[in-house]
Amino acid sequence: MDCKSFSQHADINCSKINDSFWSPITELVRTQVIRYQYLALQDKIEGAEKSYCIENFIKAGKVKKALDEGKEVPTYPIDKWCYNDENTDENAFHGWVFQDSDVYKWIEAVGYSLRNHPDSVLEKQAMDFIDIICDAQLENGYLDTLYIINDRDKIFTNLKDNHELYCFGHLAEGAISFYDATNDGKLLNAACKFADLICDTFGENKIKGYPGHEIAELALVKLYRKTGKKEYLDTADFFINERGKKPYYFDIERNKITADDNYHYNQAHIQPKYQTEAVGHAVRGVYLYSAMADIAKENCDDELYTACGKIWDNIENKKLYITGGIGATVDGEAFSFDYDLPNDLAYCETCASIGLMFFARRMSEIKPDSHYADVAERALYNTVLSGMADNGKSFFYVNPLEVLPTASHLDSRKRHVKTVRQKWFSCACCPPNLARLISSLNTYIFSENEENVFIHQYIGGSLNTKCADINISSDYLNDGSVDFNIECKLPFKLALRIPEWCDNFDVNKNYALKDGYVYIDISGNDNVEIKFEILPRIVKCSNKVRENIGKAAVMRGPIVYCLEEWDNGKNLHMLKLCENPNFEYLNGCIYADGLREKEDDKLYSTYSKPEFSPCRLKFIPYYKWANRGENEMSVYIRI
Amino acid sequence: MDCKSFSQHADINCSKINDSFWSPITELVRTQVIRYQYLALQDKIEGAEKSYCIENFIKAGKVKKALDEGKEVPTYPIDKWCYNDENTDENAFHGWVFQDSDVYKWIEAVGYSLRNHPDSVLEKQAMDFIDIICDAQLENGYLDTLYIINDRDKIFTNLKDNHELYCFGHLAEGAISFYDATNDGKLLNAACKFADLICDTFGENKIKGYPGHEIAELALVKLYRKTGKKEYLDTADFFINERGKKPYYFDIERNKITADDNYHYNQAHIQPKYQTEAVGHAVRGVYLYSAMADIAKENCDDELYTACGKIWDNIENKKLYITGGIGATVDGEAFSFDYDLPNDLAYCETCASIGLMFFARRMSEIKPDSHYADVAERALYNTVLSGMADNGKSFFYVNPLEVLPTASHLDSRKRHVKTVRQKWFSCACCPPNLARLISSLNTYIFSENEENVFIHQYIGGSLNTKCADINISSDYLNDGSVDFNIECKLPFKLALRIPEWCDNFDVNKNYALKDGYVYIDISGNDNVEIKFEILPRIVKCSNKVRENIGKAAVMRGPIVYCLEEWDNGKNLHMLKLCENPNFEYLNGCIYADGLREKEDDKLYSTYSKPEFSPCRLKFIPYYKWANRGENEMSVYIRI
Repeated sequence: MDCKSFSQHADINCSKINDSFWSPITELVRTQVIRYQYLALQDKIEGAEKSYCIENFIKAGKVKKALDEGKEVPTYPIDKWCYNDENTDENAFHGWVFQDSDVYKWIEAVGYSLRNHPDSVLEKQAMDFIDIICDAQLENGYLDTLYIINDRDKIFTNLKDNHELYCFGHLAEGAISFYDATNDGKLLNAACKFADLICDTFGENKIKGYPGHEIAELALVKLYRKTGKKEYLDTADFFINERGKKPYYFDIERNKITADDNYHYNQAHIQPKYQTEAVGHAVRGVYLYSAMADIAKENCDDELYTACGKIWDNIENKKLYITGGIGATVDGEAFSFDYDLPNDLAYCETCASIGLMFFARRMSEIKPDSHYADVAERALYNTVLSGMADNGKSFFYVNPLEVLPTASHLDSRKRHVKTVRQKWFSCACCPPNLARLISSLNTYIFSENEENVFIHQYIGGSLNTKCADINISSDYLNDGSVDFNIECKLPFKLALRIPEWCDNFDVNKNYALKDGYVYIDISGNDNVEIKFEILPRIVKCSNKVRENIGKAAVMRGPIVYCLEEWDNGKNLHMLKLCENPNFEYLNGCIYADGLREKEDDKLYSTYSKPEFSPCRLKFIPYYKWANRGENEMSVYIRI
Repeated sequence: MDCKSFSQHADINCSKINDSFWSPITELVRTQVIRYQYLALQDKIEGAEKSYCIENFIKAGKVKKALDEGKEVPTYPIDKWCYNDENTDENAFHGWVFQDSDVYKWIEAVGYSLRNHPDSVLEKQAMDFIDIICDAQLENGYLDTLYIINDRDKIFTNLKDNHELYCFGHLAEGAISFYDATNDGKLLNAACKFADLICDTFGENKIKGYPGHEIAELALVKLYRKTGKKEYLDTADFFINERGKKPYYFDIERNKITADDNYHYNQAHIQPKYQTEAVGHAVRGVYLYSAMADIAKENCDDELYTACGKIWDNIENKKLYITGGIGATVDGEAFSFDYDLPNDLAYCETCASIGLMFFARRMSEIKPDSHYADVAERALYNTVLSGMADNGKSFFYVNPLEVLPTASHLDSRKRHVKTVRQKWFSCACCPPNLARLISSLNTYIFSENEENVFIHQYIGGSLNTKCADINISSDYLNDGSVDFNIECKLPFKLALRIPEWCDNFDVNKNYALKDGYVYIDISGNDNVEIKFEILPRIVKCSNKVRENIGKAAVMRGPIVYCLEEWDNGKNLHMLKLCENPNFEYLNGCIYADGLREKEDDKLYSTYSKPEFSPCRLKFIPYYKWANRGENEMSVYIRI
């Protein structure tokens, strides 16, 4: 790896979004989603599944107070992944073991939002939550409500299943974001105290464990970058390096050397530096791979970077849905084997596509190759956006590529495939993850190093780079044109990504093309205009994906389209797309010539050529599906 | 229903098989399968999963002896469906709760086999088992080793989950078969004693329960027909009529009125007479429907018969695989919703297709309509036969229509889909079920009433009907010709089924066609020759079955063909069948013109017409798949 070419995505205040497509969405997140989630975390949304998140912190605060006062504190069992009303004492911890993380992600989103839009009410709400959170922190820095409430003696005894280090990771990310926005260091101090405890607890000659659900690793790198404290980086590195060594720590912890679990689910089957394939729980995976890229970059670690590259290739070329979804199987919310990408059984968790964007961002910082931002773009405009309803008040956790409501209702194999977005989830990782991603979307636009400003995502707005202030007028999704008005401070190269979906483009400057970016010399104030040919097009999936053979999908720019029953009638599988479909693009929808196969009534009969009648198909953007109630949906169509 | 037209399948000694296709298979079952299973039931097959069946009877016999002697007998918990070595005291019951039934099915098979081929060694083996079984029977007639060994006080307290009445059903069927073969009434007496206890226990003003797994109903009808004892028929009728009434007996039994289970799994959601759709556990289903048809016939019950007809139509037209498999989902080994017939996730338990043959047989006795024997034939030549290896020493429980070994190994959603036949199963319902079906196959050839002899299955051999002795020379599977040499005793009509797969046939007599049978007047010794046009043909599945749209299967006569990797290379899904495939039939295989699609290396790319190269496809009979080791298999191919 070439350490000198590393770039860095700029801080959040170096870019502002002003974009006809994105501004309404970021505004929706700011004015609706974050506010909605504020209520959800406190269980104030009627008809939504309960969160218990803030309730647990309040309970933990009382425990902390009682401990301080030397009072006796009860214990409750720690023996489940989810503590429901039904199975738990009312004074004990409630919800999933990782419930704390939801408020941390929300605070992270609030921090980003405040940077873009100061808002004293929102800031006060977050500070109230921070007080509640900090009241629960134990004297030694420990902060996880499950253990504080239920049993202090069991802390760090089940890293595999429980999520103390995961919650720490989100705490640190939330704390940094809020500190950057407000200069209020209360939560950051709390995070550092917990980080110090973790550094004191884990390492060589200490507990040689590592997180069951990764994220602490990348959070420790962030905390290192923020504070300069080398122990944080070293502990992150320790976690990565120790993972997967034999005998497995998870076996030692369970006091059971066993051949019945090889920890693929946790990506702990072998050391990360030897991993070549994306396996196991998809969100865990991409959080780990992101951290591996972070450490590779920080330590200029070629071995780790090579592993990242192999894993990336495996995802991009063999385990990625056209929508940027990852995780083909509900069992373990996991990656399946190569080319196993079923449409109807897909998992494609919203969080996993967000995590894939994290991984892509880090890989593009190490090497500016357009593959990374291409995949991030694919995820962003499709699976990430589909995670949220038009009105920001309901969410998808699972993002399938084909839905037959009857199957979701009657076939237990598809019970995970919801047909409409849900108000909230007991396991609510996705909605606040979406909020923090969208609220920080401006940081995904560009990265920079000494010589170059790399434009990764074409979102209109203004950038303050070291070399220039750049105003971007983007009609990217409309006619494919993006204009850069540059006030130059130092000579540099403007590197513009050529999206993988684009075969033809025009740029008003001389350029050199390298690894999917056009490099344009900028030496004074200037105006760069690039225009990508953006037309509806038919995309095929490799025929190694068994489900999609003989089928195709329709895309326009980065946006994947789908068919809904509302527009095309029942039995979407009976439809066919013509090879020359006479595409028409109107109001964001695509119309195309198609055929509808005549229904066979007889279950089995002698073969005869099927009969078709012509029809005009209507495709809508995939991310907009299920905004009109329950109905059939399909991304792929026979051709 | 027209009670006067009812026919009856003749007793086993009224027909002998002498058929180039079937004789080797029935001989294999007689000389290999039954002997193999004799060892398996005693856990004497190396490398096979343990049965515990005979071991449990021996243990139960010791308990019975101790009880007789007034000794104290320990109790063990009854709290599982399967009692493994790992989780059970070594003196307690082992295996599945229905383990007793395996030896009963084996004895039933032995009885049929002895009728066709007297064999003193085999008879002695069965009698030894019968002694062991009868030694375990309690004084009051109760006979189920799980309860006898583990806890006598809990008898008949969990009809929903445990299988006492199921085991009784198989006991009765086995006992009748063995009595008919040997005139030895020891087991039949035991069955009647247990039946008497059941009749005393269940009914109006008694326990108003019914079996969780049906079969006792049809066994009681058999026992009634054998003994003439009306109580047996009445108790069967009670079980059928009581089933599904509200409040649910299964709720009462569990002392829990609940909305969380509506007992579709057990077909106990509504009374059988109101049922219109095949739902729940497929084997349970077809055993119930068979009993409903039995009762409808015995009592000339129109309401029950109408329900049978609706359920039959639902199976035949919406829930039947081309292979005669039923049960599309592993969850509950159950029927899925209409037209949900996935190829790769299929369950298609061997037992379920056998049970479907039972249902078909009974329906055709009530009304001679060729649909019934057509479906029985479809099941017999495909899913039933595929349940057993060429050498009779390994078995399939699940019979998928498409197998990718990688998926079975790596995708937990397909863990139930085995890629090779197994030596035995801990849950070994299928192998002995196969043995009893094949051993009694001669009874499926014809049924008769006052005026007609109905030929349902074209299997060569000799029949002794009331009106004539008939010698059948069958080249049915070879050139489609079947000759009937008739020695007439009384004038009658010979009714020959025209298989649904046959469009053209020749018969050397005048005939009238009705409900799929040609009726030929026979008034003296005669020779009837019929010849069905039997050619390889392409069959399509209704396009309402989403998985099969754009695909087709190849059949010849009743036999479904499939592609195997050994013959056609990897990635069977890349193959296409030409519409005019230039079929060649050679040594039981079918060769056809096809195309192989060129592999795409890129996961996503702009659509271009796929490239194909011509190839010659080789199809083998579906029932012969996986006899050459693990490999890809597919019934359907794109066309």
